[in-house]
Amino acid sequence: MASGELSVKVALNSWKLVVERLDRVFSRLSEAQFSKEVAPGKNRLIYLLGHLTAINDAMLPILGLGTQLHSELDTMFVSTPDKSAQLPAVHELKKCWSEVNSRLLSQFANLSADEWLLRHYAMSEDDYVKEPTRNRLAVLLSRTNHMSYHLGQINLAIEQLV
Amino acid sequence: MASGELSVKVALNSWKLVVERLDRVFSRLSEAQFSKEVAPGKNRLIYLLGHLTAINDAMLPILGLGTQLHSELDTMFVSTPDKSAQLPAVHELKKCWSEVNSRLLSQFANLSADEWLLRHYAMSEDDYVKEPTRNRLAVLLSRTNHMSYHLGQINLAIEQLV
Repeated sequence: MASGELSVKVALNSWKLVVERLDRVFSRLSEAQFSKEVAPGKNRLIYLLGHLTAINDAMLPILGLGTQLHSELDTMFVSTPDKSAQLPAVHELKKCWSEVNSRLLSQFANLSADEWLLRHYAMSEDDYVKEPTRNRLAVLLSRTNHMSYHLGQINLAIEQLV
Repeated sequence: MASGELSVKVALNSWKLVVERLDRVFSRLSEAQFSKEVAPGKNRLIYLLGHLTAINDAMLPILGLGTQLHSELDTMFVSTPDKSAQLPAVHELKKCWSEVNSRLLSQFANLSADEWLLRHYAMSEDDYVKEPTRNRLAVLLSRTNHMSYHLGQINLAIEQLV
């Protein structure tokens, strides 16, 4: 395996591992348990489920892999904090979470190692020339870290529930 | 830049970004504030500072980059949960945290892209042949995620303190 391919495979493994950890956590909880806050006065689990779904969904256009599947979640879960809007039901959000991650995985599989190193679409061609590390792979790692960040918070609530 | 090199650079940028975020958080807190728990009954900030230091320190032997700088932290911060041992002072732990991350960065700079894709030292040569993705780069991404995981928890406590 060429070194570029192997690096991308390692990064994709890391992405998949964190998605699987979140899948396991979400599958263990009852609908009612999603109302629990990760710490007193902080985000509820249902909000983080929607937030992670919306942020992952936004990777599709950023990576040039298509349009968002559930752009209706952006307002509720990205531009608005928790407890300020009526949220969809947990089972609907879980469906969105799975759909988004399945779509991402199938789109990721179509990219060659070299294509992972092309610029992402939230930056201009000019900026990419100056800073070639701002590529698709950087977005993948950043969003993997984003999931880990919230997984750490989610697990604080989970230990008390299951 | 060859694709292997560019991938490694992206992964190192991601590592540095998370270390810098933690540095910023740790530098904003008074010694007394490190006694705060991230959530009721959970780890204190001082414990997570020591824990992150110990786990990062252990990367040196795992990556074949030398011996640990502060192996004395392992018992207190890895094999023992919080609130079961007398901990060192915060300013000593902060010194260890900086030393460990400086040493890692300077050692990382000596590795070529191909060397990042060699096996890590917690696995045998035979296993590496079967699974070449279990390499140094995988350890780097895993430990970056580990830091993000705890950063998410730390920030829950921080928002109330500063």
